[in-house]
Amino acid sequence: MIGRSHVHNTTIRFSRTDAAGVIYFAQVLDLAHEAYESMMEEAGCPLSTFLKPNSIHLPIIRSEADFRLPMRSGDRIRVELAVSHIGARSFATTSRVLLEPDRTVAAQVTLYHCCVYPDGSGATDIPDWLRSALA
Amino acid sequence: MIGRSHVHNTTIRFSRTDAAGVIYFAQVLDLAHEAYESMMEEAGCPLSTFLKPNSIHLPIIRSEADFRLPMRSGDRIRVELAVSHIGARSFATTSRVLLEPDRTVAAQVTLYHCCVYPDGSGATDIPDWLRSALA
Amino acid sequence: MIGRSHVHNTTIRFSRTDAAGVIYFAQVLDLAHEAYESMMEEAGCPLSTFLKPNSIHLPIIRSEADFRLPMRSGDRIRVELAVSHIGARSFATTSRVLLEPDRTVAAQVTLYHCCVYPDGSGATDIPDWLRSALA
Amino acid sequence: MIGRSHVHNTTIRFSRTDAAGVIYFAQVLDLAHEAYESMMEEAGCPLSTFLKPNSIHLPIIRSEADFRLPMRSGDRIRVELAVSHIGARSFATTSRVLLEPDRTVAAQVTLYHCCVYPDGSGATDIPDWLRSALA
Repeated sequence: MIGRSHVHNTTIRFSRTDAAGVIYFAQVLDLAHEAYESMMEEAGCPLSTFLKPNSIHLPIIRSEADFRLPMRSGDRIRVELAVSHIGARSFATTSRVLLEPDRTVAAQVTLYHCCVYPDGSGATDIPDWLRSALA
Repeated sequence: MIGRSHVHNTTIRFSRTDAAGVIYFAQVLDLAHEAYESMMEEAGCPLSTFLKPNSIHLPIIRSEADFRLPMRSGDRIRVELAVSHIGARSFATTSRVLLEPDRTVAAQVTLYHCCVYPDGSGATDIPDWLRSALA
Repeated sequence: MIGRSHVHNTTIRFSRTDAAGVIYFAQVLDLAHEAYESMMEEAGCPLSTFLKPNSIHLPIIRSEADFRLPMRSGDRIRVELAVSHIGARSFATTSRVLLEPDRTVAAQVTLYHCCVYPDGSGATDIPDWLRSALA
Repeated sequence: MIGRSHVHNTTIRFSRTDAAGVIYFAQVLDLAHEAYESMMEEAGCPLSTFLKPNSIHLPIIRSEADFRLPMRSGDRIRVELAVSHIGARSFATTSRVLLEPDRTVAAQVTLYHCCVYPDGSGATDIPDWLRSALA
């Protein structure tokens, strides 16, 4: 772990499940994004910061996810997120999704973000205030 | 039917289902919105028109939905949409969601939109070009 | 209010928003369902109860929703749910979705459920244990 | 390409977008799954096959996705899917998501499935009829 860590607790809601009776795979990535949003709020950089005109954007450029155990409606979940990479123009978060109360690992998700200008002109360096927030 | 009508064909995808094995109720409203988007494209007013700076917005102010039959992953669906109301500052679409090939009614959804200024200053009259498109 | 009431607090997550910058309308109905799930857990009848073989099902047969104010990514929300109808074979919940900290009403959603046999043979009376939980 | 290939055409719907004005990242993975469902239908193995009692299941055990260009509401999309791996007990599909009409690559998604018994007892060999369908 090279940066900020964060714990996000939640419950698997019915809308995240599919006809196989378990969480739909893409919803597991959404859980990891939810933990990222929660971490950014705690770090003083809520996502709304990056939705303002002229703000830098932090789009996701790559995701990797491993799905080990099914999660079901009503399951209590603990997401342990850590900033797992901070580069000049990109960073990543890795989230371990644990089933409570045993904390068995149900999934692991890594999301890679880059820092870009809002006008679409390309990547830019992560500003110091964001680097500090992620560290 | 007092305005434009439109038919939208689609297939129930797995992500729309839930652990009860059928389509999640809120996804039925999304099907109706998808038919609305398709109708607006055919009418020459794709939703992207209303996402431009200074464009009027058409937020949904009310929805009503009746759910009669379950829909399952892979079911072929025909959505028959009609503009069911055009007022000074609002309009509505009513969508009948039919199961193919029998065309039994699985659901009916009405979405009420109003026409507002983008600056949040309130409702405004539906412009003539939009009124013509809906009629 | 004729039955159980429940308060559910949450935060609007980014995935619930759309390109208009606010919560997508169908996600407001999902918020109301999330509050319903939370209420049923508190009442000792989590939704997983109704997913077991041979259990009665409680499908939604109708929804009504009024959307008054936009909700944005990061907004803190308080959902005040009440069981607003209990009939022989159906019940309804009405959820007021409030923006914190002012508690202005952003939306109101009513979901009507009926009680059915799992084999698709039709409606049945709400069993006493469920009637007590909802009251 | 070592197996079946398939083309799936669709349009980016409004509900897939987020407040940044573009498709929400997890929805890109859902587009790839939609193409997989379409391929399986064409191959004679619709997903409903695997939802029947006693059927083998094909859960996703890993996903990888690269996001290169934003997609917006109304964009026409062509998904070119190919079965990129067939092992004893697992297979993968790789989907290139192209923006029409230029067919520039907006994203690439690989989904890894394994073949398991429905009772949770673990992995099993891909049956011959499925192997033929994927080849």
